[in-house]
Amino acid sequence: MLFIISLSILGLLLASPISGSSQSGSINVWPMPRNFSWPEPQANPLSPNFNILSPDHRYLSSAAKRYLHLILSEHHRPLVNPSSSVRINTSAPPLLTLAITVADLTAPLHHGVDESYTLTIPAAGGAAHLTAQTAWGAMRGLETLSQLVWGNPSLVAVGVYVWDSPLFGHRGLMLDTSRNYYGVEDLLRTIETMSANKLNVFHWHITDSHSFPLLVPSEPELASKGSYGSSMQYSPADVTKIVEFGLEHGVRVLPEIDSPGHTGSWAAAYPDIVSCANMFWWPAGVDWGDRLASEPGTGHLNPLNPKTYQVLKNVIHDVATLFPEPFYHGGADEIVPGCWKADPTIQSFLSRGGTLSQLLELFVNSTFPYIVSHNKTVVYWEDVLLDDNIKVQSAALPRENTILQTWNNGHNNTKRIVSSGYRTIVSSSEFYYLDCGHGDFLGNDSIYDQQTGSHAKDGGSWCGPFKTWQTIYNYDITYGLTEDEAKLVLGGEVALWSEQADPTVLDARIWPRTSAMAESLWSGNRDDKGTKRFAEATDRLNEWRSRIVARGVRAEPIQPLWCIKNSGMCNTVNSLGS
Amino acid sequence: MLFIISLSILGLLLASPISGSSQSGSINVWPMPRNFSWPEPQANPLSPNFNILSPDHRYLSSAAKRYLHLILSEHHRPLVNPSSSVRINTSAPPLLTLAITVADLTAPLHHGVDESYTLTIPAAGGAAHLTAQTAWGAMRGLETLSQLVWGNPSLVAVGVYVWDSPLFGHRGLMLDTSRNYYGVEDLLRTIETMSANKLNVFHWHITDSHSFPLLVPSEPELASKGSYGSSMQYSPADVTKIVEFGLEHGVRVLPEIDSPGHTGSWAAAYPDIVSCANMFWWPAGVDWGDRLASEPGTGHLNPLNPKTYQVLKNVIHDVATLFPEPFYHGGADEIVPGCWKADPTIQSFLSRGGTLSQLLELFVNSTFPYIVSHNKTVVYWEDVLLDDNIKVQSAALPRENTILQTWNNGHNNTKRIVSSGYRTIVSSSEFYYLDCGHGDFLGNDSIYDQQTGSHAKDGGSWCGPFKTWQTIYNYDITYGLTEDEAKLVLGGEVALWSEQADPTVLDARIWPRTSAMAESLWSGNRDDKGTKRFAEATDRLNEWRSRIVARGVRAEPIQPLWCIKNSGMCNTVNSLGS
Repeated sequence: MLFIISLSILGLLLASPISGSSQSGSINVWPMPRNFSWPEPQANPLSPNFNILSPDHRYLSSAAKRYLHLILSEHHRPLVNPSSSVRINTSAPPLLTLAITVADLTAPLHHGVDESYTLTIPAAGGAAHLTAQTAWGAMRGLETLSQLVWGNPSLVAVGVYVWDSPLFGHRGLMLDTSRNYYGVEDLLRTIETMSANKLNVFHWHITDSHSFPLLVPSEPELASKGSYGSSMQYSPADVTKIVEFGLEHGVRVLPEIDSPGHTGSWAAAYPDIVSCANMFWWPAGVDWGDRLASEPGTGHLNPLNPKTYQVLKNVIHDVATLFPEPFYHGGADEIVPGCWKADPTIQSFLSRGGTLSQLLELFVNSTFPYIVSHNKTVVYWEDVLLDDNIKVQSAALPRENTILQTWNNGHNNTKRIVSSGYRTIVSSSEFYYLDCGHGDFLGNDSIYDQQTGSHAKDGGSWCGPFKTWQTIYNYDITYGLTEDEAKLVLGGEVALWSEQADPTVLDARIWPRTSAMAESLWSGNRDDKGTKRFAEATDRLNEWRSRIVARGVRAEPIQPLWCIKNSGMCNTVNSLGS
Repeated sequence: MLFIISLSILGLLLASPISGSSQSGSINVWPMPRNFSWPEPQANPLSPNFNILSPDHRYLSSAAKRYLHLILSEHHRPLVNPSSSVRINTSAPPLLTLAITVADLTAPLHHGVDESYTLTIPAAGGAAHLTAQTAWGAMRGLETLSQLVWGNPSLVAVGVYVWDSPLFGHRGLMLDTSRNYYGVEDLLRTIETMSANKLNVFHWHITDSHSFPLLVPSEPELASKGSYGSSMQYSPADVTKIVEFGLEHGVRVLPEIDSPGHTGSWAAAYPDIVSCANMFWWPAGVDWGDRLASEPGTGHLNPLNPKTYQVLKNVIHDVATLFPEPFYHGGADEIVPGCWKADPTIQSFLSRGGTLSQLLELFVNSTFPYIVSHNKTVVYWEDVLLDDNIKVQSAALPRENTILQTWNNGHNNTKRIVSSGYRTIVSSSEFYYLDCGHGDFLGNDSIYDQQTGSHAKDGGSWCGPFKTWQTIYNYDITYGLTEDEAKLVLGGEVALWSEQADPTVLDARIWPRTSAMAESLWSGNRDDKGTKRFAEATDRLNEWRSRIVARGVRAEPIQPLWCIKNSGMCNTVNSLGS
């Protein structure tokens, strides 16, 4: 018996914070701040008349108003009662105000903007102070304060000093709104939850082969004919609403108009500019390498048709105008040879000695400078430079105007990109793809018709298995890079491709797994001693998930409730170590 | 080009119904009826004064009233407009009434009750007729009619004749409400959706080691001390509400009180009757075979303590009384040697030459007859007889009173059970476990701390990968059995264990994958020629999922919307065949 009891204690020890920021029990901030000092955990009442004094700033004033409402009304109930680790002093002077000071109220919300802040909540109550270089850093501090308030009547952690600043400037989520449609409210809720996790880039993969939901003023037929219907479009007013909402939440909205691949939906309005549109994606008897698309939904813009550029430039112009964000994502992933080869004009080009890579380079040379002329930095998927078969010369992509988003081959491709001098955004499909693990979506997939359970262990999904929160949390996006190379890693993005997702499952696919990346990119996944802190993070993530569920987000549970009520007991001591 | 176009047509052909029941385009009934005759697809108006004439029956009358409201108000919008395949005759005589005739109004909702029905909707409008042997069969027919109505103003398929009857009498869903709690409304919504899918058994895994949410009148401390809190309990009134709701929907509510394993939560009220309660589940340095539980959350009832039976018999008595269902599930799965061995009294028993199997047999002999004395048939998990180490002699389990639910080893264990003469319910974890594929839930699992993506392809979940709807649909639960053996297969149940599920994801974990089993067990997964119909079912399941989403169920999408709008184009011709 004795050994069992002692090991039970070991289990408990394993779950207690190993080191680092001194947060206390169930009162935690997610993502964990870089420096969180709370030497004598104590809570005072939050005054029912608590107020926030914000400098006048179009977006910060709005955020302050929103946080004031949240802080006064949330009355969060932690899963584990904080009173065992926090001294609750209900007769102490209440916290009356938060005074915000911002050094530079003019800094725009662009990549690399200073998001640091300090937050001081005195043990004596009265006034707390939030100081930041920019309005965007102040928003991060407001979120931190909101997570230090709980209970009914409200209590607030006092005797707290926070200094905070993100490790990576680009902390994003990509959502595909083409394969299935999401309503504007779904996007706003997602952006709001991103902000609560201190994420700052909503990468909106707006269009693809399946539907074209964006109403582009100069090319309205693309949506009127290529969307799933009039109720499944984003109007310019919708876009403005989403962009403004993003600014109020410190979240950039980065649009992607994927091309020249993934453009089947453009054919509804302009059949002439799309090769292989709406053809069967993988003809019988044809090798995988000669299929027409990477998955059902065919169509590539035809680089040889002048009309292609007329339409695309109209789209680029309008998108560049609708979205103030200085990054523009041009796509350029998954050029499938069979699709271009299916087009007669391209067949002629090839028969005259042209190559598919020349075709892509023609496309890039005809569009990249035009995007840049709108004062945009162009983001492309890595394929444009790293694809085995169809790629451009790096001379076509000046490093000062180009960022490559990596998704294949884990750290290897990150290394290839940055060692070539390009900046990168990391979205490794092996770690950061939120859609993986739910099996393939093909309608008649006979790998699922076996009676002995011998089908592929990854479940038939090309990027299976499912990426657990720990998989995401533990990924080191600069692994294996030199210090200089690492500087070219702007940050990371998890991605939700929507073959098997739509509004019914949006929240659960994204949260809380995206919270795991949020902390990893904000303050890291290691403690002061360099030990990975995923074990320590488990209880905190359970609490954080519970809070965002209470805020109206259907985040999925990561454990039985029993596990946080019995801290450490759902661990294993037979872990591989890290 | 030519070959590509012809193959595109092939793609379309692959998705069209191969044979069998003549449903038309997007107007379909799920699960597909055994015989659905609609030779000239036509739709007439549904009268705004449409009425249902039901015989007077406590539950059928209630169901008729509910379906009348649904039929008049649903105004379903099919994803694909039916007008291309159905002649819409808006000036034809409307359908005015449905007259229900039931031969035996006294038949209770027990296993094996006749659920057959015929439904006739004349092309001339006027009165439709629903004839059934029992009220429960009539409820199935009401659901069928509801799915033949769509549009605003409402249209209804006419010229339809349906004869229908299930292939298997037991078509169920198991839900674990112990690891995480679900509100009563969640259970009711689940039962309602089961009914819409013609499922008939809600197997309620009420208690486990993590929490004891059932308020048992004679043993109230089990819940007051062992639940997650007063707001996370099921009162006797809640149970009655759920049972009555089930009866109104033709769904039996089959309670499971798992014992002697999976009882850690009982220790909160009665620490003396539970061995190894609340100990660390897998002590460091201990072999897997000597762990204390199959997963975190330890505790087995102690068969040597007389108090055990006093408490358990009180529970059995009250549960047998609260639930009119003639089946009672006693659990008996996953007896872990290390747990019993941790108890001093059991250690003494073993040192005197006793065995763990004798201990289990003592437990069964002390409880099984008591359950049977309440006129119950006892369902146990297969482990009680098939476990490698701890199991009882079959003499302890009379075949006339015992049903064994299989979950391990696919068809092999089904065969072992029925070839021994026992009836079985099939819940193969390789095919029917809805929780699998989301990774392991351990709080510090270092298999997820690898930078090269080399972690287990099944994602670390013991029963990974994720079971896709096609995996579930294609499983043949009587595969490899003789005709006589197959008669002992009562049916099947999908199961949702709740380590990583709670109300936020309940619907999406269950639906529409459970719909796949529902059709497979109702009318089979093959057409008249014996060909598996999963390819044909894809568009129908997309439509059905869309309808249940509109009914308020957050079922997950199985494909891009594009796929059903381009029927067959999301198939593969490189399928393995079946």
